[in-house]
Amino acid sequence: MKIVGAVDVDHAKIGRSLRDVAGAESDVLVTPSLDEALLGEEAHVLLHSTTSSARAAWEQMAPAVTRGISVVSTCEELSYPWRTQAGLAGEIDEAARKSGARVLGTGVNPGYSMDALPLVLTSPCQSVRRVELERVVDAGARRGPLQRKVGAGLTVAAFDQLVQEGRVRHVGLAESAWMLLDGLGWEVDEVEEIVEPVLAEAEIATGMLTVEPGRVAGVRQTLRALCRGEELLRLRLAMYVGAESPRDRVRVWGVPDVDVTVSGGIHGDRATAAMALNCVSGILERPAGLLTMLDLVGLRAR
Amino acid sequence: MKIVGAVDVDHAKIGRSLRDVAGAESDVLVTPSLDEALLGEEAHVLLHSTTSSARAAWEQMAPAVTRGISVVSTCEELSYPWRTQAGLAGEIDEAARKSGARVLGTGVNPGYSMDALPLVLTSPCQSVRRVELERVVDAGARRGPLQRKVGAGLTVAAFDQLVQEGRVRHVGLAESAWMLLDGLGWEVDEVEEIVEPVLAEAEIATGMLTVEPGRVAGVRQTLRALCRGEELLRLRLAMYVGAESPRDRVRVWGVPDVDVTVSGGIHGDRATAAMALNCVSGILERPAGLLTMLDLVGLRAR
Repeated sequence: MKIVGAVDVDHAKIGRSLRDVAGAESDVLVTPSLDEALLGEEAHVLLHSTTSSARAAWEQMAPAVTRGISVVSTCEELSYPWRTQAGLAGEIDEAARKSGARVLGTGVNPGYSMDALPLVLTSPCQSVRRVELERVVDAGARRGPLQRKVGAGLTVAAFDQLVQEGRVRHVGLAESAWMLLDGLGWEVDEVEEIVEPVLAEAEIATGMLTVEPGRVAGVRQTLRALCRGEELLRLRLAMYVGAESPRDRVRVWGVPDVDVTVSGGIHGDRATAAMALNCVSGILERPAGLLTMLDLVGLRAR
Repeated sequence: MKIVGAVDVDHAKIGRSLRDVAGAESDVLVTPSLDEALLGEEAHVLLHSTTSSARAAWEQMAPAVTRGISVVSTCEELSYPWRTQAGLAGEIDEAARKSGARVLGTGVNPGYSMDALPLVLTSPCQSVRRVELERVVDAGARRGPLQRKVGAGLTVAAFDQLVQEGRVRHVGLAESAWMLLDGLGWEVDEVEEIVEPVLAEAEIATGMLTVEPGRVAGVRQTLRALCRGEELLRLRLAMYVGAESPRDRVRVWGVPDVDVTVSGGIHGDRATAAMALNCVSGILERPAGLLTMLDLVGLRAR
């Protein structure tokens, strides 16, 4: 792969080289718009990492897609919009087919830990009855914005207020769940999602902030999918400072059962960048349109 | 999928229904040859499970492949014959392309535990330096033939004799290693494989046989792949009666590191049957020819 352009809205980066801004082995300069970046360049793939909103992401990438440039985006909602934003998904799919581009939303979560990986882990199963996923992230080991995003240091009242405003939550849990359900061919009649605080039992100092006992250390988000009252799928994501054994765990009840643990978990920031790059050649082999990680997961229980 | 024929060389099974022989929901009768099984039937896929030898497997399946019938086989050597039996691989590939058939060798090991799964587990990595795989199978929990195949109950001298004759060893470790090496794009200049006994420290009784202390409980097979003296890849497979914590472990050193454990391991017999079935739709989407699990693993470090 060869880098031919770079775009950022941050004025502090515009006009500087990728070598300078990001330590990349590239002297390409950061430009403020996609049109400028593409001026006189032939590009095949746009790596897009800006927003969690599929609608906002589509507005940004549409000029590339209509020129036939394929996109791998880390936009969480774009990872599986067919169930949550079907109209938009159809619109993106149609535009991509028309120009011959592929569009994929991926990353580590959504995109891997709680959807693509568990699906691959069902491939040695003759049948699957139930899937339970648990991801525990030590927010204290991650960048400052993430520590604040999970509500670390807040009072319970302030946390609840932000939850009500939709400002504390992980975007993508529903997308992961629908990808799993469709991948396994499961019909469900109820999907519920709960966001609750994880409280600090003792003082936790991360270097970025300090959380007093009884205050919020982070967030626990649980999604349950049920069919006739029976829980078929449960996703539990906990992101908080001071988490003691970060991990990804996948449990499959079937023939045979499968119980897999990723010790230490999968590092969110580095892994998301890696997933985006590692999916490029895979999408270029697929037909044009809006793709999902389901198209790239060749192995799963059928 | 609909079963249209069944073949076995076992005279005790010929003429009986699959319902009777295997508890399957099918009244198809077992016939002694592929020609008889296919008489008057339109078949798309042959599920083949007979031998570890790619040459012998090819002789058995060739009549189907030349008719354009695709094959998923559990033949260990067929899982990745491009490096170990390149001439035969080319011959199968040519025949399959000519008739429009796909041929795939798969199973749990080779096919998944020590090749396809570790490759998928590198997909959140920006770079990979080294991979180490460990699979510990409790042979005592498996069928009698496997317990004897790993040498359980033998003296060390008798075990060494069988190793020299090539009669005690797991077929497929080299195939898994080459699939990993090619999948990661790694060049190596040395591949060594060692087969050694695991000795019983105390008496082990499995219900099928009893192993006295000091006798052989099973086999440990280690493959190491090196480049300029540096070990890039290590596969360790231990299959013995009395193994205390059966598991599959995948360790990847890279950015980021990955450390995954499948608690209890992946059940070989059931999982192999499942893998074969779960690969059917995947191969039918691919171009004709000799395929490998690399073709079905859409996700991996690139």
